[in-house]
Amino acid sequence: MAELLNDRFLRALQRQPVDVTPVWMMRQAGRYLPEYRAIRAKAGNFLNLCTNPELACEVTLQPLRRFELDAAILFSDILTVPDAMGCGLYFGEGEGPKFHKPVRTEADVAALPVINSERDLPYVMSAVKLIRRELNGSVPLIGFSGSPWTIATYMVEGGGSKDFAIIKKMLMATPEIMHALLEKVALSVIDYLNAQIRAGAQAVQIFDTWGGVLSPHAYKEFSLAYMRKIVAGLQKENEGRKVPVIVFTKNGGLWLEAIADIGADCVGLDWTIDIGAARARIGDKVALQGNMDPSTLYAPPARIRTEVALILQQYGNGAGHVFNLGHGIHQHVDPDHAKAFIDAVHELSARYHG
Amino acid sequence: MAELLNDRFLRALQRQPVDVTPVWMMRQAGRYLPEYRAIRAKAGNFLNLCTNPELACEVTLQPLRRFELDAAILFSDILTVPDAMGCGLYFGEGEGPKFHKPVRTEADVAALPVINSERDLPYVMSAVKLIRRELNGSVPLIGFSGSPWTIATYMVEGGGSKDFAIIKKMLMATPEIMHALLEKVALSVIDYLNAQIRAGAQAVQIFDTWGGVLSPHAYKEFSLAYMRKIVAGLQKENEGRKVPVIVFTKNGGLWLEAIADIGADCVGLDWTIDIGAARARIGDKVALQGNMDPSTLYAPPARIRTEVALILQQYGNGAGHVFNLGHGIHQHVDPDHAKAFIDAVHELSARYHG
Repeated sequence: MAELLNDRFLRALQRQPVDVTPVWMMRQAGRYLPEYRAIRAKAGNFLNLCTNPELACEVTLQPLRRFELDAAILFSDILTVPDAMGCGLYFGEGEGPKFHKPVRTEADVAALPVINSERDLPYVMSAVKLIRRELNGSVPLIGFSGSPWTIATYMVEGGGSKDFAIIKKMLMATPEIMHALLEKVALSVIDYLNAQIRAGAQAVQIFDTWGGVLSPHAYKEFSLAYMRKIVAGLQKENEGRKVPVIVFTKNGGLWLEAIADIGADCVGLDWTIDIGAARARIGDKVALQGNMDPSTLYAPPARIRTEVALILQQYGNGAGHVFNLGHGIHQHVDPDHAKAFIDAVHELSARYHG
Repeated sequence: MAELLNDRFLRALQRQPVDVTPVWMMRQAGRYLPEYRAIRAKAGNFLNLCTNPELACEVTLQPLRRFELDAAILFSDILTVPDAMGCGLYFGEGEGPKFHKPVRTEADVAALPVINSERDLPYVMSAVKLIRRELNGSVPLIGFSGSPWTIATYMVEGGGSKDFAIIKKMLMATPEIMHALLEKVALSVIDYLNAQIRAGAQAVQIFDTWGGVLSPHAYKEFSLAYMRKIVAGLQKENEGRKVPVIVFTKNGGLWLEAIADIGADCVGLDWTIDIGAARARIGDKVALQGNMDPSTLYAPPARIRTEVALILQQYGNGAGHVFNLGHGIHQHVDPDHAKAFIDAVHELSARYHG
């Protein structure tokens, strides 16, 4: 493998000194880029993009050609795992993700396999290898997965949900079925992330998009416990270097101490918390990633710069901060505003380092 | 006016001793009740229910005939205020609320009136008076409004939103227009809640459903500041009794200290926070309302009882707790489960009082 030329991101995840604060954007390969929309239109649908390693590689690299990003992230979808488990993922025209076979009963759960990712999701591993080759050491590549709870919400509801009625009923009425499902998903995710690491992912992020819809005790029992299990099950090093793990629970700001305690290297923050307050609570245990409101990118570049400056000031001096948005970039953002954001992080952060 | 026979709710809001913890449910007059659906079907549409005082009174009283609730809440909608301001509220078939005339520009804001509620929303005041007469002192009546920020999200977006792109762009790019809009809505809400109080509302709640989508500093500047203004502008007493004010910001758990500081009597909590932790943070300043996950009502009654017991234990001994769900009751809940919830609160809470 080519030598890594920019390791700011990996260093910051381990709270090691850096020259400037590294930055990437969740969903940086996505619909806000006209060149992404062009490829997406040619591919016909979203799943074709995910399952074709050349196309997945191409859209992964697109934002890196425009912006001085400090990391690439594999282009894929958190629902490839339940698809490989046999749930039958599809996207209706203009709709979110759906499953042909939702998981609702004890028998449904019993019938689910734990996946073997190299056999069941070969296109993902091919994409990881191809992206690493094309990156050629310029920046590290992030692999990712959904959290078991987040993946399970789609499996049980049969798609996206507003109130999570079906899965919450399962959780409360038959917690043993809920746990059996989460266990199988967690084992699949461990296999999946380790396969990504073997294929070349240099850090991994677990996206817990829907953990924040739970009560504190339900969150700990049904989401956090399985992320802890995953972190414990991951390969710790590859290519002679630590493979850091980031956990991100959207709307998890009230539970930071518990999240920082599961063994991950970095905790992702959404924009509802002051990152300085978060650092005071858990910054001696983990690095922090975040946390500008993605809607800030609708504002004029001068306003974006002010917001970046504020967040850098809130975090303060020293390493341990990976700048990011607090959630994925919105599709209607002007790419020039994303550039203003990324450049501002690098320009304004030097004074907080070295 | 008839003497108030059950004042647990009003006493708890002022942290005065009670025999058992009072309980009501947000959206207790609603679609989960077959008798509501029957009236709703006859009325033809939702707005006809709101604008007809007899029907609004009838659906307000329906849950009180089934359950031992400690308060009634006016049946209405938070969007009657922007409708009265001229935005043209309508509900498409199977859709959420929409506005014919969204508010997007400085000229749009300049053209908006501050409402005179007795003139512009007479049907609401008639409903309040009628409900008070029909309640005949059995339990107190809660009036309500949306928060200026929450109301403004619908006015600017033209309806519901997932990412609040348009209003957040306004907030960041032209904060002076945003403030001008919020000021007019806040003055309208002050007028509206005071008119409800004069008509007979014995407590009022401000619903800040969407404050939680903001960053901490944006929340304070664009949502909390206007709720503070409203609280300061409200009539403090009526009929020789204090009219307590409840503020409820969904997903506001990280900002409780700031919320408890605006002069309201009670802070509403969603279910993502341990109410014991919330009490430790702000319970010496305000009463707390909440906070069971509404999805718990999908569980078997025994499970609902366990969850009620847990929340009562978390809050602990003494007054200052109004039991409620952490958000509105879901439409697919079995009314018998709501009864199990309400009865459990009364039965299990006696040991924490007196």
